[in-house]
Amino acid sequence: MLPAARAPIRFHFDYLSPYAYLAWTQLQPLGARFGRDVEPVPILFAALLDAHGHKGPAEIPSKRVYIFKDVLRSAHALGVPLEPPPSHPFNPLLALRASSLPLSAEERRRLVDALFLATWAGGGGVEGPEAVARAANEAGLDGAALVAAAAGEQAKALLRSQTDAALAAGVFGVPTMIVDGEAFWGLDAFAHLERFLRGEDPLDAEALARWSSITPSARRPRSL
Amino acid sequence: MLPAARAPIRFHFDYLSPYAYLAWTQLQPLGARFGRDVEPVPILFAALLDAHGHKGPAEIPSKRVYIFKDVLRSAHALGVPLEPPPSHPFNPLLALRASSLPLSAEERRRLVDALFLATWAGGGGVEGPEAVARAANEAGLDGAALVAAAAGEQAKALLRSQTDAALAAGVFGVPTMIVDGEAFWGLDAFAHLERFLRGEDPLDAEALARWSSITPSARRPRSL
Repeated sequence: MLPAARAPIRFHFDYLSPYAYLAWTQLQPLGARFGRDVEPVPILFAALLDAHGHKGPAEIPSKRVYIFKDVLRSAHALGVPLEPPPSHPFNPLLALRASSLPLSAEERRRLVDALFLATWAGGGGVEGPEAVARAANEAGLDGAALVAAAAGEQAKALLRSQTDAALAAGVFGVPTMIVDGEAFWGLDAFAHLERFLRGEDPLDAEALARWSSITPSARRPRSL
Repeated sequence: MLPAARAPIRFHFDYLSPYAYLAWTQLQPLGARFGRDVEPVPILFAALLDAHGHKGPAEIPSKRVYIFKDVLRSAHALGVPLEPPPSHPFNPLLALRASSLPLSAEERRRLVDALFLATWAGGGGVEGPEAVARAANEAGLDGAALVAAAAGEQAKALLRSQTDAALAAGVFGVPTMIVDGEAFWGLDAFAHLERFLRGEDPLDAEALARWSSITPSARRPRSL
C-alpha cells in the first residue's frame, strides 16, 4: 500500500509582493524535500488591507524605502536575481484572475512562475492584457485565450472567493503558506515552516492558551 | 594610537514589543563581537503608528494570534525563555520615560534589562509605578526616586524627542537598530545586520537607485 498523500502547502500570494516572489522560488524545493505539493492560491493583497483597515508597506514612505533594501538583501542572501517591475504598486488584478482560472496543477505552476518572473526578474511586468498574455505564452499556454477568460465572470468570482476564504482562514498578509491548517506568514517564517514540516514545531498548546488569553489593559496612549 | 571607537548600535524599542525583547537578548553579544556598544533608545511605538496612520500587530485580531505563535517559535529557536506579561497591549509610558532619564550607560543597560525581564520573562509587568520601581530596584537603582523623576517634565520631553528623532530618521517599527546611519528593522533583520557589521552588506547604490525611482502605476484596486 502506498502511504497516504500528504496535504499540499497552500501558497497564498499576490504578484505585488517581492517577498511572495522570493518565497515562491524557495517553496518548491522545500515542498519536494518533505513530499508536499505546493498549491498556488492567488489572492488580492489590497482586499486584505481593506478588510483590516490596514496599510501596505508601500503606503508608508519610510517603510517603502526600507522594504526595497530588505528585499534586495534577502534576494542576495538567497542567490535569487531580482529586478524591480516597471512600476510599483501596480494593478495585479488581471494577472491574479488569469492565475485563478481552471488549469491543471502543472499549467498553473508554469503560469504563476512566468508571471512572477515577468514581475520581479526583469520582464516587462504583468499590468495589462499584453503583458499577461506574453507571460502565459512563455508558460506554454494560449495567452490570448487566457486573457480573454481572465476578464470573465468566472475568473473574477474565483479570485474573490479565494481572497474571502483566505481572510476567513485568518490570512492578513502575503505570502502566507498554510499547511495542515497552520499558517506561516512571510519569507521570514520559512525557518518555522521548515521545522513544522520536520515535525519539530515547538508550539505547545498550554503555552499558547496562556498567551491567547492575555487581555489588553490599555489602548494606544493618547499622546506623548 | 588606539583605533577610533566605532559608532554604537542604537536600539530603538518599546517594552510593548516581544520582538524588541528577543532582539535585546541577542544584540549585546552581537555588538560585542564587532566592537560596537549597544545604546538603548526608548521610543513610543504607538506614536509611530499614529504618525503613519498605521495599525500595530495587536490591533488586527488574526495577526495578534499569529504573532503570539511566531514570537513563541522565535524564542524557542533562540533558546530564550518567554512568558506573556499580565496584560497586552499595556501602557508602557512610565517604563519608557524612566528608561529615558539621564543615567550612566551601564545603569541604563541594567534598567532596560530589568524592565524587559519584568515584561517578557515572567515578572509582574511594567505597568504602574510599583512595577517600574520594583524592576529599577532589581537593577540596583533607587526605584522610588526613578519613578518620581519619570513622572516629571524632563522624562516626558526626553521620550518625546527620542520618538520624534526616530520618526525623522525613518523609523516605522520596533525594534529598529541604527548603526552607521543604516536602519535594520525587526528580529528578522539580524542576519542582514550581522552582514552589515561584517562589512558584507550587498546593497549596491546603483541597484538601489533603480529601485527607489520606481513609481506607482496604481493605487489599491477599488474592489474585487
